[in-house]
This record gives sequence, C-alpha cells and structure tokens, in this order.
Amino acid sequence: MKSSGYHLLKTDQQARRGRLHTPHGPIETPAFMPVGTQATVKGLLPSQVKSTGAEILLANTYHLLLRPGHELVRDLGGLHAFMGWDGPILTDSGGYQVFSLAHRRKITEEGVVFQSHLDGSKVMLGPAEAMQIQLALGSDILMSFDECIPYPIAKEAAEESLARTHRWEETTLQFRPDDGRALFAIVQGGIFEDLRLRSAEFLTNLPFDGYAVGGLFVGEERSDTLRVLQAVGPHLPSDKARYVMGVGTPLEVVECVMRGFDMFDCVLPTRNARHGQAMTFAGALRLKAARFQKDEAPIDEDCDCLACARFSRAYLRHLLMAKEILAATLISHHNLRFMQRLMDGVRRAIEEGRLSDFRDDLASGLGAS
Amino acid sequence: MKSSGYHLLKTDQQARRGRLHTPHGPIETPAFMPVGTQATVKGLLPSQVKSTGAEILLANTYHLLLRPGHELVRDLGGLHAFMGWDGPILTDSGGYQVFSLAHRRKITEEGVVFQSHLDGSKVMLGPAEAMQIQLALGSDILMSFDECIPYPIAKEAAEESLARTHRWEETTLQFRPDDGRALFAIVQGGIFEDLRLRSAEFLTNLPFDGYAVGGLFVGEERSDTLRVLQAVGPHLPSDKARYVMGVGTPLEVVECVMRGFDMFDCVLPTRNARHGQAMTFAGALRLKAARFQKDEAPIDEDCDCLACARFSRAYLRHLLMAKEILAATLISHHNLRFMQRLMDGVRRAIEEGRLSDFRDDLASGLGAS
Repeated sequence: MKSSGYHLLKTDQQARRGRLHTPHGPIETPAFMPVGTQATVKGLLPSQVKSTGAEILLANTYHLLLRPGHELVRDLGGLHAFMGWDGPILTDSGGYQVFSLAHRRKITEEGVVFQSHLDGSKVMLGPAEAMQIQLALGSDILMSFDECIPYPIAKEAAEESLARTHRWEETTLQFRPDDGRALFAIVQGGIFEDLRLRSAEFLTNLPFDGYAVGGLFVGEERSDTLRVLQAVGPHLPSDKARYVMGVGTPLEVVECVMRGFDMFDCVLPTRNARHGQAMTFAGALRLKAARFQKDEAPIDEDCDCLACARFSRAYLRHLLMAKEILAATLISHHNLRFMQRLMDGVRRAIEEGRLSDFRDDLASGLGAS
Repeated sequence: MKSSGYHLLKTDQQARRGRLHTPHGPIETPAFMPVGTQATVKGLLPSQVKSTGAEILLANTYHLLLRPGHELVRDLGGLHAFMGWDGPILTDSGGYQVFSLAHRRKITEEGVVFQSHLDGSKVMLGPAEAMQIQLALGSDILMSFDECIPYPIAKEAAEESLARTHRWEETTLQFRPDDGRALFAIVQGGIFEDLRLRSAEFLTNLPFDGYAVGGLFVGEERSDTLRVLQAVGPHLPSDKARYVMGVGTPLEVVECVMRGFDMFDCVLPTRNARHGQAMTFAGALRLKAARFQKDEAPIDEDCDCLACARFSRAYLRHLLMAKEILAATLISHHNLRFMQRLMDGVRRAIEEGRLSDFRDDLASGLGAS
C-alpha cells in the first residue's frame, strides 16, 4: 500500500470508517477539514486549529496563486513551513474559485484566462498550471482541475462542460506526483444523474488516488444533492477516499457519510463564527441576540474549546457588539471544535453500527432549537 | 503594610526597583501594563497576554461604562471573571476619555455630562460615578477622577481646571475601598511646573495609595514632558507607587523610569501591531514593506513570542496584505512580549546599578534602525 492510501476499517451500511495515509501523517475518516483559504484558518493559530482535533486542513490554490504566489511559498519551504502547520494539507485546484470569484473569464481548451479579483491582472489557470501550483505549494492531496458549472444549467451545456472537465482531469494525471502525495479526481455533471454516473465511470477508470464530488451545494434542492450522492457513491472504488466538496451543515455532513463519503470541508464554521453564530447540538446560537446579554453560561456546557473553558455567552456577546477580534478567535475555535466533536461521534457511531440512530438523534437535537 | 502596598527593593539614582502588592497578586516594578480597553487586549487571549510576561492589565472605565455597562460586569462576577484575567487590573477613571472621545461635554462641579460616542445617549461621569463604576468592575487599582486639559492651554484655564480636579479627587477619597484595593491620585497641571508642584503637594497630603501623573503626552514637546516628570518625581512619596499615564515608546518608558516612575501603559504596542509595525531593539519594522516579501527570518531572532517562535516576516507580511486576523494576534503578542523583555531589562539594570548604560544602549540600538 502506498503511503497515501486509504484503508477501510469498518462499514455501517454504506458509511465507512477509515484511515487515509498522507506524507504528513494519517487522518481518521470520516473527517472534517477546516478551511485555511489564505494559508491561515481565519482567527486561529495553527496550534489552536490542532487543539480542536482537526488533522487536515484545506487551502485554496486560487487565492494563494494570486497572493502571495505559489513560487514564493515554494521558495519559503512550502505551505506547511510557511503557515506553520505540520499536518496534512489538501489544496483545491482553483477551479471553483475561478468560476465564482474571478472576473472576465475566457475558457479555452487549455484552461481559463481570467482577471484577478484582487488587482485585475490577467492570469491563466488550466490543468497544467493547477498541478504546478499545487506541487509548488507542497500539498499532500492535490485536486484535479475542473470546470464548475452554474445552477441551473441546460443539460447540453452541462454535457459539453463535463467533456472538457474530463479532458482537463486526464491532463492533470501527467503531473501526478509519485512521492506519496495523492491526486484526487472530481466527479462533475450537475444534478443530472446520468452525467454524474458517466463522470464517475470515466474517472474511476483512470489512476487517481481518491475521488471527490464537486459542483454540489451551489443552489440546487437538497433532495437533488442527496440523490446525486446516493447515485454516485456506489460507483466509486471502495479502496479509495471519497470527498464531498464544500459540505456543509452538521446534518448534511452526516447525510453524506451515510452515502459512503469520507471527507468534507466548509467555511461556515469559521465564517459564521465571525458573525456571532455558535454551533451546538441543539442548533446555532446567534450570540448577538439581546437574550444573551446577561447569560453567564458558556456556549455549551459539554464543550472543551477555548471559549467554553472560560468565557460566558455574555462576554462573547460583548466582544461581538464591541467588534473585538477575540470574538472571532473564540467562536471560531468553538465551532471547529464542535465539528470535530461531531466527527468523533460519527466515527464512533460507525464503529458501533449505529450511525442511523446517531443521525436521527442529531436531527432531533438540531430541530429542537 | 496593607496588601496593596508598594515595597521599594532597590534604587539606581532616581530609578526604583519595587514590588506592588494587589488583591490579585504582586507585580514587579517598573512595570508595563498592556491595555484592555473593552475588557480584552485586542487580538489576544488572556493566557496569551500572560505568556508575554505581563502581570497587570489596564481597562477603561469610560468604555466599559458605555458598553457592556459596569452593573452588568458586576452582576457577572466583576471584570476579572468576565474577561478571564486573574491577575491585577488597573482601571482608569474615564476622565481622559470623556475629554478625548465623548461629544457635547458640559462640565459642572459634580462632574461631566456628555453624549456617548457610541449611541449619543446622555451620560454623567463625576468623581462619585467614576468610583462607583470602578468598584463595580472590581479593579485592583482605581484611579481618581480628573479633568484632562487640552494642549496648549492658557495658564489661568489650567489653574481653574486644576482646582476643580483637586476637589474631584478629594471627593473620590470618600469612596476609597478599605479591602486592599488601591486608589491612586492623578497629578495634573499641564506643562506648568508650579501648577504640577502645587498638585503634587495637595494630593500627597491626602491618603491616596499611589500617585499618577496625567495629562502628559498630549502634544507637548518631549522636553516639556520630561521637565515636568523631573520636577514632580522628587515630590512624590517614596513608599508609594508612581505611574505615568499613557507612556509610551520604549525610550520614553526608560526616561520615565530614570525620573523615578514605576508604572506605564500604552496602546501603541497593540495598535501599531494591527497596522503591521513590529517592535525590535533596533527600531520598528514596517512589515508591509516590499523588502520583507521573501524574508524567511522571524521578526527578532532573540524573541520567544508566538510570532517569532514559528513564523517568518514573509508570512506575517502575507497575513497583513491579506488582511488576516492572525496578523494582529501574532504581531500584538510580539510587541507586548517586546515591552515585557524591555521591562525585564530595565528591572535587571536597576538591580545591577547600570540603568543609565541600559538607556544609552537602547537609544543607540533604536537609533541604528
């Protein structure tokens, strides 16, 4: 088994308890990956991120390409040294951000020429560039380059895009590292089940190290999201890791796990934290609300994060109202710790064959808020 | 000796090495106090502030009165519990902020009626209110209520203000706690040496627990500042702590120590940090400068702060350019650690009778930048 391999430990119906080996150590799956877009998880030191229980981070190729530049990061020893994180790092390929953030995109067979959202400069990003950038960053898990289509979209347009995405992804294999770093494919196809299955079949016949499902959670009905995942899951190889990109709420993560997926990332725990939303198993608390003004309780009595260890909801509310930085730090730490507690529970539930009950308990707890 | 007393350990010319006892433990003097205006030192956890070596914090009565309100803080167990800091806290009386931040001030014999800079609400702050608020906050060292006059000012106006300040300060003594918490007087008088001496004489005849010099560093020539401190120092009792409010740069702090002062506070280490200025013994580094783009070195090879332990100037510059919160945290920790390393050096130099050399070395190092 190569050092980047996925090792299946236990199943509970379709759900999988596993371990993914990377050059920077193993991660226990199902796993939630905090997002460090600009080579930092917003508001937290790497040691604080680690203390939430997170084992792997996601960083953004698109952002780091534009600032500070992948060559600078490479020259400074790679992303791990640069940002002071010695665990595994997964980098996206930039495809998603090119289609959501960049200006004046022009798509060619070689990739996308676009204007930087930072300074308007013209940049080219295609399968070759995306791989060269991720190799320069030194990430443990690289993502192949894809086109992210909007929702809704006509099937003909989705089909045309998918064919190009497949050509791009095949190209990325030319740059696949052979040193234990992994290259994951991205299954696309919108909400069209036949396109998704075609994508899964095409990509699983190529020597990728893992498989992601992209282009979901972009505005479609949640029933369509789950239908696509339900359809795709069984067509992915059981001996490789499976990653649903950009997920999600606690319940969505568990729903994805129940459909056989292993890895997840989402900016919401940290973004919502900065806006004063604290996650709990009884739903989110909007800490700016007047009802927390004199509330001496921590966010969650059972939580061991930096916020709950010492600070009251009243203090956190005060920090939010006073626009103090410490609010972002404390609530981000809490929310990331919450996600890791959730994943601990998910992994234990799979080991004990009771994930379905775990999901129902979670849903009724969240619904009770 | 009461538990809040000052204990003189050693002198070096006029400089004093001492220990100030408070209900929350002793502090070694000369001491630099980080500023936690809104019940947080901006960008840092209390544990991180403590890890810089800081033993005492300053918090702002004016800000906390307006938000979240001193009664709320009292009901939640006082400022120490509220903000998670178990060391000593000094609170200013709000006088300075009333005259620098509030709108539509009206001064009467009872105090100042003003409009909150936050919501325009009408608030009254006088000697009685300032004491009640500080008692409610539960600070270890309370400051008496004074009027801060602008600079420049006509001598007659300064004299009139000083008389009122003295009446106000005498009033605060009615509220002086007898439980070990200290009440410090504030010597005023602008740059007029005779007024300053009159103020020192008046106040030292009253049973205050320590003496501050206020109303300096408000725009006057630095030679005037030092002249006033030089004149006032010898007229303050040697068995009580002496505090110069709002100081300052590293060299200014040392100049004050050489004139017999023990305690200092300043927002600049944290404010400048948020703007990318890192303090070193060779002068400040403006980390946004292009020359740091590929600089692999830490801010200061000899520093053991959170930033210097792990992160390059290049990474800190990237965080600043990307407007990431972590920049504020890391550089604030560095600057506060720098101030504590400075004070360590100052205290050692006094113990070893070489503060004058220490000052010269500091000045030539800072001048070399």
